[in-house]
Amino acid sequence: MSLSLYDASIPTFLHSLRALKAILEKAVAHAEARKFDPNVFVSMRLYPDMLPFARQIQIASDSAKGAAARLSGTEPPKFEDNETTMADLIARVTKTIDYLEGFKPEQFAGDDNRVITIKTPRINLNFTAVNFVRHWALANFFFHTTTAYALLRHGGVEIGKQDYLGPVPQV
Amino acid sequence: MSLSLYDASIPTFLHSLRALKAILEKAVAHAEARKFDPNVFVSMRLYPDMLPFARQIQIASDSAKGAAARLSGTEPPKFEDNETTMADLIARVTKTIDYLEGFKPEQFAGDDNRVITIKTPRINLNFTAVNFVRHWALANFFFHTTTAYALLRHGGVEIGKQDYLGPVPQV
Repeated sequence: MSLSLYDASIPTFLHSLRALKAILEKAVAHAEARKFDPNVFVSMRLYPDMLPFARQIQIASDSAKGAAARLSGTEPPKFEDNETTMADLIARVTKTIDYLEGFKPEQFAGDDNRVITIKTPRINLNFTAVNFVRHWALANFFFHTTTAYALLRHGGVEIGKQDYLGPVPQV
Repeated sequence: MSLSLYDASIPTFLHSLRALKAILEKAVAHAEARKFDPNVFVSMRLYPDMLPFARQIQIASDSAKGAAARLSGTEPPKFEDNETTMADLIARVTKTIDYLEGFKPEQFAGDDNRVITIKTPRINLNFTAVNFVRHWALANFFFHTTTAYALLRHGGVEIGKQDYLGPVPQV
């Protein structure tokens, strides 16, 4: 038995993005209860030369939508990276969820070893589809969702790992 | 085409643990170059009630070895969680890599929907094997490796996402 490339990627992105959305909503509620502006979280960083909170959310979104597009051989929608408020970031996550929900498993069919290319400013990276999913797409996605979580936790928001893991379906 | 449960878990753990080991070695070199004790990292936290650095490494290790044991129907080795130095933590990661390298794909064969049970102090969690891998084992594993990375980054160690991603095999 086995997982298709769809099974190994899209349900993970969707599950974690829904958990991330709930975490962002908790951060807003936390700020409102303490009467400070929730949007101070948007520019928080763990170190001066690290990317701020908003970029963590944007790149998590891009990791997921870019992976879905590349694995299905389609063009991803362009999101403008112009979010400046928590409400904007929640909308960005929602938009990403909506996009991913539109895919069907059969769109990901094909050779597991087909080549997926990522163009970077300096070089092109060429992965097999399997290595792209497990060592690039998922690793990048979880890196940014976890860093976003860590920033909110560092900022005093009362969340725990259960919020990050979300409600995993039980048998 | 598709990934087996082995393909979807063990190569990811191994790849990321090797990257994590290199990151820990960079943190030690960083401290030594600046003539401070590298072991100050061991107890660092991002917030007072978050788990310290050592626990992030221990739980990343446990997530990987626990998943391998559960999916193969074997008993995981007991690691004592007695690491107090960076050298100890590097040895813990190495020990986890050695353990995971001992598995063969055929040990993970079986129904993707077989039930994997996690006993917690309060309740038992029952997942299908597929949901266990993607929503529990990988999510937990990346959560703790990324939090460890974030702690070192917050502590001034000069590492970047490329260190976390490691050298992904190219076609």
